[in-house]
Order: sequence, then structure tokens, then C-alpha cells
Amino acid sequence: MSHGKPFTLYSHVGGPNGWKVAFVLNELGLQYETIYFEFSKNEQKSPEHLKYNPNGRIPTLVDHSNHDFVVWESNAILTYLVEKYDTTHKISMADAGEKVAQLQWLFFQASGQGPYFGQAGWFLLYHHEKLPSAIERYQKEVIRVFGVLESVLSKQDWLVGGKCTIADLSFIPWNNAALKMHVADYSGFDFEKDFPAVYKWHNAMLSRESVSKALAERQSLLAK
Amino acid sequence: MSHGKPFTLYSHVGGPNGWKVAFVLNELGLQYETIYFEFSKNEQKSPEHLKYNPNGRIPTLVDHSNHDFVVWESNAILTYLVEKYDTTHKISMADAGEKVAQLQWLFFQASGQGPYFGQAGWFLLYHHEKLPSAIERYQKEVIRVFGVLESVLSKQDWLVGGKCTIADLSFIPWNNAALKMHVADYSGFDFEKDFPAVYKWHNAMLSRESVSKALAERQSLLAK
Repeated sequence: MSHGKPFTLYSHVGGPNGWKVAFVLNELGLQYETIYFEFSKNEQKSPEHLKYNPNGRIPTLVDHSNHDFVVWESNAILTYLVEKYDTTHKISMADAGEKVAQLQWLFFQASGQGPYFGQAGWFLLYHHEKLPSAIERYQKEVIRVFGVLESVLSKQDWLVGGKCTIADLSFIPWNNAALKMHVADYSGFDFEKDFPAVYKWHNAMLSRESVSKALAERQSLLAK
Repeated sequence: MSHGKPFTLYSHVGGPNGWKVAFVLNELGLQYETIYFEFSKNEQKSPEHLKYNPNGRIPTLVDHSNHDFVVWESNAILTYLVEKYDTTHKISMADAGEKVAQLQWLFFQASGQGPYFGQAGWFLLYHHEKLPSAIERYQKEVIRVFGVLESVLSKQDWLVGGKCTIADLSFIPWNNAALKMHVADYSGFDFEKDFPAVYKWHNAMLSRESVSKALAERQSLLAK
């Protein structure tokens, strides 16, 4: 790779899922070059990218330090990164049972948070006709997911093993999107009051250097 | 556990995700008792079940042979089962890189197939008003996902490592639902003609004893 860094991350400035990978690469001190696709030009569906990722979505990671190993699906990427590079278990579990719990929360994020929050955004912003009952369906699901998280985080600071892991970090981008958009104006919604433990957890993660650095980069790219 | 078997599976007769776990328990020759929740009575949200699974959905697995270890999220359950009990790698990968690929496809199933196919079903069957453009959105996504799978399976028989693994098996229930319902009447859709490799792959899996036995049980329970 001409950029000389060990990783290439294919991502998108506005999309949530690429930023998860940036958080974790930052946490582990790994150097990477990000290529941001323009969805308006359908760059993510180019033959070159489809060779890496047949789903034609982002993120995709190429690990040049491991024979150009390719992995896509953001939470598979996070798991790959910690299994290979988080040898001191800074942001991942070592114990077999706790690794299962970590994976379980990653699947909840990937199947229970991301898609539903994403549909809320779709019907609020992009769908070609206004469908209030579809919007409401997904806003209610956002609130429900916050409730599931609150039921756990009101009893413990982190989802697994008493420390911040990839399972927690994976929730940041879609929670940010929901708070800024999906349920920002939702009748009666008060994040800090209704979900105090989720509020505390989310803000504790936002203040991590790995996260704030990536989100500042996102903000600066969006401003361009 | 009074049933004396090593596993209790909390599931639902009609829902797709519990059946994945049944396939894999059958593949591995593990004995289990299934408790089918009645969603109409909200049994999945009972305090007893929420103690196991704060998301209040199915499936949830309790492994009595491992100190009543609890895991939820269907694809986390599949991964747990093969890591602990598929010591001969009958339906799972051993190589580190192939394990990552297996996980990647499990995440694609959990985030890219299940939720979108599920939304197609929601707007076709359950939503309180008819929203043709929402139905069409998700039917198109079903077709797109079949296309992603075809692009891979037209070049290889299985998703990972040249054999049937949990990654493949995880796709069965939602593909069945789509074929019987979501896109059964979709204009111009011809599964065998449009997606011949996916058709062959899906039918090869249906003919496995582990799968046909579970689906026959499902059919018999639905008939009651």
C-alpha cells in the first residue's frame, strides 16, 4: 500500500459503522489510512471494493501487516482486531465466558440497535414519502433499546467484565445518531432523566481520547 | 433442571431465530428441552426470562452442563456451541482466518439478512396500516441480499472453508420465511432461475437431517 500504514479502512464520513473501527484502531494505537467512499457516486459498489466485500457496504478493513487479510462487517472487524492485537486485553475480555458475553452484546448491537436505529433514520430523512406510522415504529424501537441497556447498566458500569470493551464502544455511533436525530424531538423523551445509566455510560465513552479524536475528525470532514 | 437434559432452549414456534439453535444442537448431537414462549401472553418478557435475557426476545440458551451458563442472541449461541462442543469441527472452522470469515458471515446474517427480512414480514403481516412503499423497500432488500449471496455462492459451494458451517446454517430460517412469504408473490421473482447457486445451497441445507428434523417438528407444532 502506497500509504505505508499497516491498515486500510474503507469507510464513509457520515455513516456510523466505519467510526466504530476507527475508535478501536485508535484504542489499540494502530496506524491506518481511511478511504472515504462517496455513496452518491456508488463507490462502495465498485468492482474493486466488491472483490473485498461482496455486500458493497462499509466498513471494510484490509490488514496489510497480515498478508492483506480482508474483513468486513464492523463487529467482525472489531473482534478480529482485539483477538489479534489487544494482547493485553485493554478493551476486550480474556476469559472464555466473558468473551461469549462480549460477542452476545456485539450481536445485540448489530441486529437489535443498528438496523432499527437505521430504519428510524431512513424513514425520517430519505424515504420518498412521509410515513408517520413507520417513523413512530422505529422511534419506539430506539426507546425500547435504550430501556434494555438501562436495565443492565443501572446495575453495572459496563456491559461485560467491569470495563469498557468493544461491546460498549460498538453502540456509540448509532446512539449519537439517535440522540441528534431519531428521537431528538420525540415527545417526552429526556435522555438524562429517562435513561440515567445509559446517559452516564455513553458520555463516559465519548470522553475517551480514541473516540473524541475520531469524532472530531468526522466533524471536520463533515464541515468541508 | 427437571427435564434432565443438558440444555434448555427458550424459543418460539413461529419465530425464525430459535430454529437456528435447534439445527446446531441437532448437528452436534446435543440433547435439549425447548420451552416455547407464547408471545400473545408476553411470556418472553416475564421477570424470570428477563433475568436471563434483558432483551426479552428469543432465543436464549441455558447450558446446564456448564454451570447453567446463559447466552442469548442466536448467532452468539451458535458460536458458543461450536467453540465448546464442535471439537472435531464438523460445522465450524478451526483456522484463525477462517474463524474470522465465519464470524463475518454470521454478522451479515444477523444485521443484513434477519432485520431486513423481518421488516418485510412486519409490513406485510402485522403493521396496522398498509404501507406499500415500506413493503417494497424491504422486498427489494430481500432480493438484494439474495444477490449478495449469489455473487459468492456462484463461485463456491459454501460461505467459508469449503464446507457447511454455522455461517451457512444461520441463513436458513429467514430464507425460508422470505421464500414462503416476503417475496413469494414479488413481481418477476423466480428463486431457482434468478439465484441458482443460492437455490442449490439452500436446498442442500434443507436436506440435512439436523435441519429437516427441526423443521418437521416446527411444522407439527404449527399444525396444533
